[in-house]
Amino acid sequence: MKRRLLLVSNSTLHGSGYLDHCQTNIQSFFGRDVKKVLFVPYALHDRDAYTKTARTKFDALGGGNTFRLLKCLYDNKVVSEIRKRVLEDGVPYMGSSAGTNVSTVSISTTNDMPIVFPPSFAAIGLVPFNINPHYLDPDPASRHMGETREQRISQYHEEPDTPSVLGLREGSMLLVEGNKATLLGTTKARLFTRGKPTVEYDPGSDLSFLLTDAH
Amino acid sequence: MKRRLLLVSNSTLHGSGYLDHCQTNIQSFFGRDVKKVLFVPYALHDRDAYTKTARTKFDALGGGNTFRLLKCLYDNKVVSEIRKRVLEDGVPYMGSSAGTNVSTVSISTTNDMPIVFPPSFAAIGLVPFNINPHYLDPDPASRHMGETREQRISQYHEEPDTPSVLGLREGSMLLVEGNKATLLGTTKARLFTRGKPTVEYDPGSDLSFLLTDAH
Repeated sequence: MKRRLLLVSNSTLHGSGYLDHCQTNIQSFFGRDVKKVLFVPYALHDRDAYTKTARTKFDALGGGNTFRLLKCLYDNKVVSEIRKRVLEDGVPYMGSSAGTNVSTVSISTTNDMPIVFPPSFAAIGLVPFNINPHYLDPDPASRHMGETREQRISQYHEEPDTPSVLGLREGSMLLVEGNKATLLGTTKARLFTRGKPTVEYDPGSDLSFLLTDAH
Repeated sequence: MKRRLLLVSNSTLHGSGYLDHCQTNIQSFFGRDVKKVLFVPYALHDRDAYTKTARTKFDALGGGNTFRLLKCLYDNKVVSEIRKRVLEDGVPYMGSSAGTNVSTVSISTTNDMPIVFPPSFAAIGLVPFNINPHYLDPDPASRHMGETREQRISQYHEEPDTPSVLGLREGSMLLVEGNKATLLGTTKARLFTRGKPTVEYDPGSDLSFLLTDAH
């Protein structure tokens, strides 16, 4: 398994510039040998502007709307091609937010609005679990009565055969190298597994067990 | 057009009990002659418990997960039957949150997680526009970098031929009687129309123009 993935929760962290919070991780992930990066701008409407922003920052993140991104990947028939290139040929994959969602089993744990209808919620499947990026803890001071993020993920796990969901708070990211997965960044992550209590993991934790089929 | 709809933003308002905030509206909407209410519990996993809660409160709201609710309506082949009964036979329809979403053109402006895959995002179509229930203003104190609700709706309007979206804040509801629509409740609503500036409406506003085909 040649898989190499860097799955980031969010592109911008409060108080710092676009991609600043994960810049050193990006540099060490791609290394000095990577000269070309394929940037997939499908998740935002103005693709030229988005590509320009990405190019300026020399990055390959995929933020924006998850439904739009996945629909465009299907429309352009590149879902299985990306899977093959990443899992079999070892092409490094990096995503943030929407780009992280589409790398997992399905986009069923995105926070985005379903603004377009993709042919399926099944995603690229580079890992055998789901991720909820921008994971947000309940705000005890809030008077808003919409469901909390944890309640929404619990509803997902009421459905049969649903995989684990890793809640990546803003500032955190997951590095996958072959069959090893490590939590990086500055914030903890929260793991939701169907029928089990939730577990918190500190930055630096080894999460390789998530890559086994049981998850 | 015999249509009679009561579309509520949320089932519970901070500081009051389940359905308390719209109880008088429910009573006057159904009136003294309605003896039986069809409650659709599809949006929550435990349907018996949900029905019991609803029965206790003598209500006919449809809260829960919008994707689950719409998928179940399609699975049970009742989407066009409900449309016919409401639009042609004048059966009153009431929904809150998910139940409000599925009454509109599509569920593309729900806030819910896409935990199941419905055959379409097209909804019952009792009104020719969309609603965003639990509409939330940006919190200037927040450090969270996820998109604001307004940004998400703007992304929806980047797509072609998308209808207007009425953002119903918690505490507000829309009463539709035939070709007349009135904003009720205690909070203002925000209207998003593709290519136009957003507009705020006070409770009591006549929103009948939303029922014309142009919207």
